[in-house]
Amino acid sequence: MNHDNSIHKLSDVANKLSSLSISNIAAKINERRSKGEKIFNLTIGDFDPVHFPIPLILEEEIITAYKSKYTNYPVVGGMPELLESVSAHIKYFGGFDYNPNEIITGSGSRPLTYILFKTLINKGDKVINVVPSWNNYNYVQLVEAEEITFEAKPENNFMVTPEEIKPLLGFASLITFNSPSNPAGTTYSSENTKDIFNLIVEENKRRIAEDNKPLYVFYDIVYWLLTYGNTKFINPVEVCPEIKDYIIFVDGISKCFAATGVRLGWAFGPEPVIAKMKQMIAHIGAWSPKPEQVAVSKFLKDTAEVEKYLKGFKSGLFDRLDLLYKTIMQIKATGIDVDAISPQGALYLSVKLNLIGYKTPAGKTISSVADITNFLLDEAGIAVVPFFAFGANPDSLWFRISVGVCSLDDVREVCKLMKKVTSGITHL
Amino acid sequence: MNHDNSIHKLSDVANKLSSLSISNIAAKINERRSKGEKIFNLTIGDFDPVHFPIPLILEEEIITAYKSKYTNYPVVGGMPELLESVSAHIKYFGGFDYNPNEIITGSGSRPLTYILFKTLINKGDKVINVVPSWNNYNYVQLVEAEEITFEAKPENNFMVTPEEIKPLLGFASLITFNSPSNPAGTTYSSENTKDIFNLIVEENKRRIAEDNKPLYVFYDIVYWLLTYGNTKFINPVEVCPEIKDYIIFVDGISKCFAATGVRLGWAFGPEPVIAKMKQMIAHIGAWSPKPEQVAVSKFLKDTAEVEKYLKGFKSGLFDRLDLLYKTIMQIKATGIDVDAISPQGALYLSVKLNLIGYKTPAGKTISSVADITNFLLDEAGIAVVPFFAFGANPDSLWFRISVGVCSLDDVREVCKLMKKVTSGITHL
Repeated sequence: MNHDNSIHKLSDVANKLSSLSISNIAAKINERRSKGEKIFNLTIGDFDPVHFPIPLILEEEIITAYKSKYTNYPVVGGMPELLESVSAHIKYFGGFDYNPNEIITGSGSRPLTYILFKTLINKGDKVINVVPSWNNYNYVQLVEAEEITFEAKPENNFMVTPEEIKPLLGFASLITFNSPSNPAGTTYSSENTKDIFNLIVEENKRRIAEDNKPLYVFYDIVYWLLTYGNTKFINPVEVCPEIKDYIIFVDGISKCFAATGVRLGWAFGPEPVIAKMKQMIAHIGAWSPKPEQVAVSKFLKDTAEVEKYLKGFKSGLFDRLDLLYKTIMQIKATGIDVDAISPQGALYLSVKLNLIGYKTPAGKTISSVADITNFLLDEAGIAVVPFFAFGANPDSLWFRISVGVCSLDDVREVCKLMKKVTSGITHL
Repeated sequence: MNHDNSIHKLSDVANKLSSLSISNIAAKINERRSKGEKIFNLTIGDFDPVHFPIPLILEEEIITAYKSKYTNYPVVGGMPELLESVSAHIKYFGGFDYNPNEIITGSGSRPLTYILFKTLINKGDKVINVVPSWNNYNYVQLVEAEEITFEAKPENNFMVTPEEIKPLLGFASLITFNSPSNPAGTTYSSENTKDIFNLIVEENKRRIAEDNKPLYVFYDIVYWLLTYGNTKFINPVEVCPEIKDYIIFVDGISKCFAATGVRLGWAFGPEPVIAKMKQMIAHIGAWSPKPEQVAVSKFLKDTAEVEKYLKGFKSGLFDRLDLLYKTIMQIKATGIDVDAISPQGALYLSVKLNLIGYKTPAGKTISSVADITNFLLDEAGIAVVPFFAFGANPDSLWFRISVGVCSLDDVREVCKLMKKVTSGITHL
């Protein structure tokens, strides 16, 4: 190269783009590990295949599909048999009533989320982003929309309430929901789901009467099959049928089948929106490979195998989450200002760690969220993500603990270390 | 649904979006086939795995990677071992000198093309699109740029010349190239490559001196390993080293390894551009599955296997293309105004079929490009794509013949049918 980097003039969107907040934490962990330190990585929304492999039958079907030479172009928007299988799967497990022409598939949930934003949102449109949540602001940035951020409260399990959201609805073209929540591991109740979506339906009745753009709903349900105990995912269309005109769900195999690296997602919603998304994905080309499409189609059809897999998978995740939850509660009982929300779904636990005003065993004073994160990392080898990485305010004392890459023994060790380091702190 | 489709108000980009021109032809073929008619489909840039499977060793490596449980998140932008392998592969076969930090991978060549446009181009920027070509206008539309279309001439093998392109260079932010060409099956010569890219370098020297945005080059090289006879793909950076600052190549396994359904592509270019593309693909999520990434990495390292595969693959494609070429030349010798360009690369043959002013054996008068297409489809069962589907003017009498889904026997039958129907036409 003859020139320095200053010759490059990229697009405005490219220049403004943020990195994933979570990437910075990953870099820090890798740095520590490269020095030979043992770090318990509770930061990533991923799975270690040693502990959580994809369903064996899915693996076998992918291999069969490759041996059967399904290696030429798939149908744009998804192989017909896959769309049929997804339709049956979401009906069987969630009561969702969607035909193949109301379903699109792609190479993961992210491309479909992006294409959804691109299909619905103009530059300058307003998007209500309920946080803490997955990094939807990146999609807002990519389509040059304007974000209306609403931070849900810990006392509401980090879920927005109808009263809170009502005043915002008039301004936006899109609102984001996610349940079970990343990062909170919590879910919307049936009552709140019904009340919130009824408000949106009312808002849209006014808009449609004036031929205005409706308020669309982007509902990220990638963790919907991972719920624990009495918690069940509430299908908004069951409790508020009229929302069906305006809601688009994004889902996939990444989380519910521990298949983040297999790259297959789907979205479903009103046919005109989905049809346009299919037209767009033809050009953007973010398709899942044909063998994976054929294989997922066959796997999803086998509801007995799906149920068997989910039972074992969920039990493995719950055991880890529950152990951590109980440990935090034990520490709370010692009088330290920590807290946690009983695990409801996903692979995450919400943990409050108000250690501000303490001195650590190593003699450091904790006076910020960053100090808390560093204390755990430096003095216990435990890496967690503060909620501000998910859009919460920078002073939020809540953290996401993710258990997908840990063995149960790892979690036991983490619990022991948590108790040890917190027992060694002293109030200033 | 309670409402009709008129309630939906999509984004401006979504509303303006075109479908792939070629999709309409596919629909027509399917309609004919559903009536039980035998149609020789020479329209699609794809392969029938019966005739052109992916390399067996690649299939085996994918299976091995799945059995080895590479099923969690790949590294954003590409697994390090894949970036290393691509770097070595493009060096070995093309003399391209690029490090892993100058390479990005994604779920096919299309997502990378789109992300390239999105990284470089602002709304209203001008993009020179050399046609006939792959449907770059879709990317122009998606980023709301303005297209400056330049139609290359048959006498130049549908490649633009330095003299032709010079007056346009001052206006644009991006220019598109593709060699070997889809649809033409032709390539840029060493002289033209050198002269064209020297002009762009000169243009950029002026721009850089004034701190203006350079003219970037998007070079689609997805067919670069598929060249025939004495034709070799010319690496622009070898004949014009200074272009390296401004050129981004898009490539992948789809065409050169008959793997359109495996979804793995890569792009390489200046590090600041590639770094930003990696940041963007983190959000857009159009990644290739991890097992495919690991497997392609291993396959590309085995240069002997790659060479062996390409030898057989190219010979199969060339035999088909050459037979068709000779047939068209035989028809030309009978005095009908048809022509073809001797196959140089890709899986396509450029064929001129000026049958306007003839009466068909079935008694129809041919007076348009559509009439020619329909004559071949209706009276010979042969489906081809007119160049206007690739951006040429609607009156262009040239057609793309694609041989990827045909056996050699199919091609022999097509040649026989071509001769038969053209011998039955009569001048009005």
